[in-house]
Amino acid sequence: MPDRILVINPNSTDAVTRAIEDAMVPLHDPGGPEIDCVTLREGPPGIESQMDADSVILPLCRVIRDADAAAFVIACFSDPGLFSAREATAKPVLGIAECGILTALTFGHRFGVISILARSVPRHLRYIAAMGVGQRLAGDLPIGLGVAELADARTTLTRMVDVGRQLRDRDGADVLVMGCAGMARYRAALEEAIEIPVVEPTQTAVAMAIARVRLGWGINLTGR
Amino acid sequence: MPDRILVINPNSTDAVTRAIEDAMVPLHDPGGPEIDCVTLREGPPGIESQMDADSVILPLCRVIRDADAAAFVIACFSDPGLFSAREATAKPVLGIAECGILTALTFGHRFGVISILARSVPRHLRYIAAMGVGQRLAGDLPIGLGVAELADARTTLTRMVDVGRQLRDRDGADVLVMGCAGMARYRAALEEAIEIPVVEPTQTAVAMAIARVRLGWGINLTGR
Amino acid sequence: MPDRILVINPNSTDAVTRAIEDAMVPLHDPGGPEIDCVTLREGPPGIESQMDADSVILPLCRVIRDADAAAFVIACFSDPGLFSAREATAKPVLGIAECGILTALTFGHRFGVISILARSVPRHLRYIAAMGVGQRLAGDLPIGLGVAELADARTTLTRMVDVGRQLRDRDGADVLVMGCAGMARYRAALEEAIEIPVVEPTQTAVAMAIARVRLGWGINLTGR
Amino acid sequence: MPDRILVINPNSTDAVTRAIEDAMVPLHDPGGPEIDCVTLREGPPGIESQMDADSVILPLCRVIRDADAAAFVIACFSDPGLFSAREATAKPVLGIAECGILTALTFGHRFGVISILARSVPRHLRYIAAMGVGQRLAGDLPIGLGVAELADARTTLTRMVDVGRQLRDRDGADVLVMGCAGMARYRAALEEAIEIPVVEPTQTAVAMAIARVRLGWGINLTGR
Amino acid sequence: MPDRILVINPNSTDAVTRAIEDAMVPLHDPGGPEIDCVTLREGPPGIESQMDADSVILPLCRVIRDADAAAFVIACFSDPGLFSAREATAKPVLGIAECGILTALTFGHRFGVISILARSVPRHLRYIAAMGVGQRLAGDLPIGLGVAELADARTTLTRMVDVGRQLRDRDGADVLVMGCAGMARYRAALEEAIEIPVVEPTQTAVAMAIARVRLGWGINLTGR
Amino acid sequence: MPDRILVINPNSTDAVTRAIEDAMVPLHDPGGPEIDCVTLREGPPGIESQMDADSVILPLCRVIRDADAAAFVIACFSDPGLFSAREATAKPVLGIAECGILTALTFGHRFGVISILARSVPRHLRYIAAMGVGQRLAGDLPIGLGVAELADARTTLTRMVDVGRQLRDRDGADVLVMGCAGMARYRAALEEAIEIPVVEPTQTAVAMAIARVRLGWGINLTGR
Repeated sequence: MPDRILVINPNSTDAVTRAIEDAMVPLHDPGGPEIDCVTLREGPPGIESQMDADSVILPLCRVIRDADAAAFVIACFSDPGLFSAREATAKPVLGIAECGILTALTFGHRFGVISILARSVPRHLRYIAAMGVGQRLAGDLPIGLGVAELADARTTLTRMVDVGRQLRDRDGADVLVMGCAGMARYRAALEEAIEIPVVEPTQTAVAMAIARVRLGWGINLTGR
Repeated sequence: MPDRILVINPNSTDAVTRAIEDAMVPLHDPGGPEIDCVTLREGPPGIESQMDADSVILPLCRVIRDADAAAFVIACFSDPGLFSAREATAKPVLGIAECGILTALTFGHRFGVISILARSVPRHLRYIAAMGVGQRLAGDLPIGLGVAELADARTTLTRMVDVGRQLRDRDGADVLVMGCAGMARYRAALEEAIEIPVVEPTQTAVAMAIARVRLGWGINLTGR
Repeated sequence: MPDRILVINPNSTDAVTRAIEDAMVPLHDPGGPEIDCVTLREGPPGIESQMDADSVILPLCRVIRDADAAAFVIACFSDPGLFSAREATAKPVLGIAECGILTALTFGHRFGVISILARSVPRHLRYIAAMGVGQRLAGDLPIGLGVAELADARTTLTRMVDVGRQLRDRDGADVLVMGCAGMARYRAALEEAIEIPVVEPTQTAVAMAIARVRLGWGINLTGR
Repeated sequence: MPDRILVINPNSTDAVTRAIEDAMVPLHDPGGPEIDCVTLREGPPGIESQMDADSVILPLCRVIRDADAAAFVIACFSDPGLFSAREATAKPVLGIAECGILTALTFGHRFGVISILARSVPRHLRYIAAMGVGQRLAGDLPIGLGVAELADARTTLTRMVDVGRQLRDRDGADVLVMGCAGMARYRAALEEAIEIPVVEPTQTAVAMAIARVRLGWGINLTGR
Repeated sequence: MPDRILVINPNSTDAVTRAIEDAMVPLHDPGGPEIDCVTLREGPPGIESQMDADSVILPLCRVIRDADAAAFVIACFSDPGLFSAREATAKPVLGIAECGILTALTFGHRFGVISILARSVPRHLRYIAAMGVGQRLAGDLPIGLGVAELADARTTLTRMVDVGRQLRDRDGADVLVMGCAGMARYRAALEEAIEIPVVEPTQTAVAMAIARVRLGWGINLTGR
Repeated sequence: MPDRILVINPNSTDAVTRAIEDAMVPLHDPGGPEIDCVTLREGPPGIESQMDADSVILPLCRVIRDADAAAFVIACFSDPGLFSAREATAKPVLGIAECGILTALTFGHRFGVISILARSVPRHLRYIAAMGVGQRLAGDLPIGLGVAELADARTTLTRMVDVGRQLRDRDGADVLVMGCAGMARYRAALEEAIEIPVVEPTQTAVAMAIARVRLGWGINLTGR
């Protein structure tokens, strides 16, 4: 049986999970690990507040502890429970904010983040500072839509393009990171409109998870 | 009835709560808010891992949401749930790591942190970086004792003095912060041995909570 | 006789001292230290330049060396003479810029400073960088009024609101610090208009001084 | 014909190229892009000085401009010519220092770099600062061996273990990055000896290149 | 025979070399070293891309290795080959970006850079970050003209004034650095228009080279 | 009459002034400005504390305001009164710490500072942080001698070599800055012993002052 990467959408909205599944298609590989996307039943409909993020840590870690998988991806841009999950298993656990931002650094000097809501921004800023990469941040701006509202393609894309332009032209971003797993399907259209690279973070995290599975580094270290 | 500041020890060890109570004595004030120290029943015996810290967030926030208090202090140096708690109430919520470190900055240029266990250190470093004060950090070194072991006064103080000397002499610290609420009773002895100021973080947080209650700032803002 | 905290307004304008006294009211406490606000006779009418700030250091330190007080607060946002004063006495000496900014960090991720004059800004920026908290600064903008002109409530508040909006909306501040002791009486009105927390720095410094007096830390260390 | 990733060893030592080839084995994938490792004939035997690094930029960029490949990896820890190469082609070009360091950030909070020679260190420090990730650096220490001398397995591994211990125990590293493509074959042994994760940078860069090829992001943007 | 400082314009445009020569006039000194300005024949007409910058490193280092001079100045704001050149000779080698920026730090707290083209900006940002002085950067904005177009005085000065105003008024710069050796002749006019100091970088580098020649520091150290 | 650069030793020890004069010899230039070194009569015998530094600001600024000179150098590594002096005159005023540190950045990636006393170190660290160049600092270590004791050549040089070795070998410095004007005469001997470049800061500041006088930049701007 091949290895399996478990991608966990920690909100309970299946539409988001299905959008993540669609985003995984280019990463599937006959000889490589399977990529399974699951919804965290215990999660809130969308992770919009710090409390939403913190509320999923325990159920998420239970899933990770009990699942038979070679690596895990937490598919929410708050990377909820990332460091607890790394204690819960010796297998690789990757967060989409961490991987999306690090990958963006290979695309341009200053990255911009497109967030869903204004109140997400300080949460992101704390995390980017904790990562120690704040010198590379051009800005983090919200589109003012909650997770559920991302289903409205027209409004969502229009706002993403507006905010993307501001990050590019006013704040000097030369690469954008989409700050919510639920934005995945707008990547290509946004990149076409803005004309700078746009990073979809779940794809970057799954790509890094595949590499980890193939390389098998540090698996037996209790470390960290 | 006077205002009340609720100091929550998020581990379930009553001895730690009582030690915190003892540390509060100089801050009691007939005309000011009461200071109530409580143990979080749902907490683990000590908060030593990221998972320990994350596991107390929800019960801690429930206590904070339901309590009749004018301000809250989370008495664990991981500041678990600090930002969720600030969403759960419009009242001031202060964390002892945040307040202890900020207060230390008024005592000396480079602060050292004395941690309980080696695995606490990266967690602290992430937090200090998120706070944006890492330039002031001289070092963070563990004494290698868990929360329960802090009850052994002789071993604890000996190790705190050793680690404190290293932070002062090798790393250049000119002020120390005790990185666990359970270390409160060793402050004076450590300061006497090391001869640089030693900051007990729960006391700093309660002092700032008293100020917040007296000043009443931002209470009606939904903010943040 | 109870302990006494001496709050020194280093400019010679008594109206500012009286405004500071008014701001102290909520911090008075029957069981705690007295709070005495005094004007530095030798000071200039307002501290608006670096030279103004430097000119008060020696007389300020003389007052501090000779006064019978348990702690001192230097009530000018340039924190003139703070580090000299800490050599002049083993008692706690606190500066309102240091305490105001550190306290603001517990209210929001990015703080904005409202300054009096454009030429104050580089002085503040040097100080914020020396404090090592520049990563948290959203911006520092002047209202273009000198200390004397702050007496004109209508103009002052209008400009503070304008500048505060710019710090909040353009620069992303989620908390504001008033960059002059003479602005104290506008705090509540500004907070109401801007709808993010506004920190009055003299109050924060006196609150921290009260805590220091109560806790008695490091008093006998020659340190630093 | 499947896509091809061209991994260019910019030194002229075929033994290094073959070692890189060996390191690629776990990343080969029947359905994915081929991984071709080539030696830059015009390169010096080892890249040990800034001049060595700068001397390969033009021939390297010619190879990249003329080659029929879907992505390129520059397999030298100085990332020579990385930004010129990105002008020479619209295809992805990745550097092993950039990818190795960014990947290390997902393994631990503070990374240490093991360099070949003392004079490599300032070059690395400039690059790490340019990347904006210096806050995460624990230290960069040399083993004092040139590229050719890495063939002596016994001496090399002994020194890597010594330096790795110093980075871990004195400087607080919790993950190590091997600072030379020629160190690839020592990864597992070093990790076993040091008991913290060890990152082999060429593998990380090729893994990120595979992801880029699969995802096809930003290929048609002139960007940057 | 007196000492000689060799100022190398690494682009092949003699008009730029002559403009540099004109800028040297106030630095000539009967008792001091001669200042010789030469054009690098192998250079491109202007250094506008990273590839342009990298392409001149080898010929530039050959000139430096073979020339009979007491010190060298690389007169291009990308400081191409600066660190290789320092390996090629034990004599002082200075870059105009490094010296121009460091000198600007003695004129004001936040410096702005006026660049030629948008694609110069990330290159400058990487360099400023590598220098470790990014905290002092107000902004780096392009005028959108290539090196050849700088000959059009009217357009060039108009755009420099526009960009300079934006750096001063929007980004808070209190000193400007001209980001191209070819801008030298606009310094005085720009300073008069903008009313903050404007630093011409080649002059600063030659001034520092004169000091190095006079002081003779570190000449016999292999160092670095 | 030629221009004159006034170098002010703000301590009252003529021996230090004479040592500075000796250090100026290589910078004298028949066609250039005169270099006059004077002792500040009102200064303390040595500037060893923050209070010492602050106490000289007013008399220093009076000298600068009243003197007929083209530029001024404050020859004390605390740069006392630098920013006030820049308000007192439109002529260039340079500080030896600022110029010495900035010049050191052109010699190596990480600079070490050799201080006189342990209590100088936090003062330097605040200043280096305010300058925004702390990322380049390897360390700042004291030799434990006051200004008067620097006259004892044997002890002073021995300690400087010891401290210099520690900065080089333990902290990774590749250039040293002498942290007191009174250390000038030990530069060559220290450099010979340590084998990395050693920067004498008064010489760097006077060299920059000569350049300012020759270039005449920003003289008529009220600026800053």
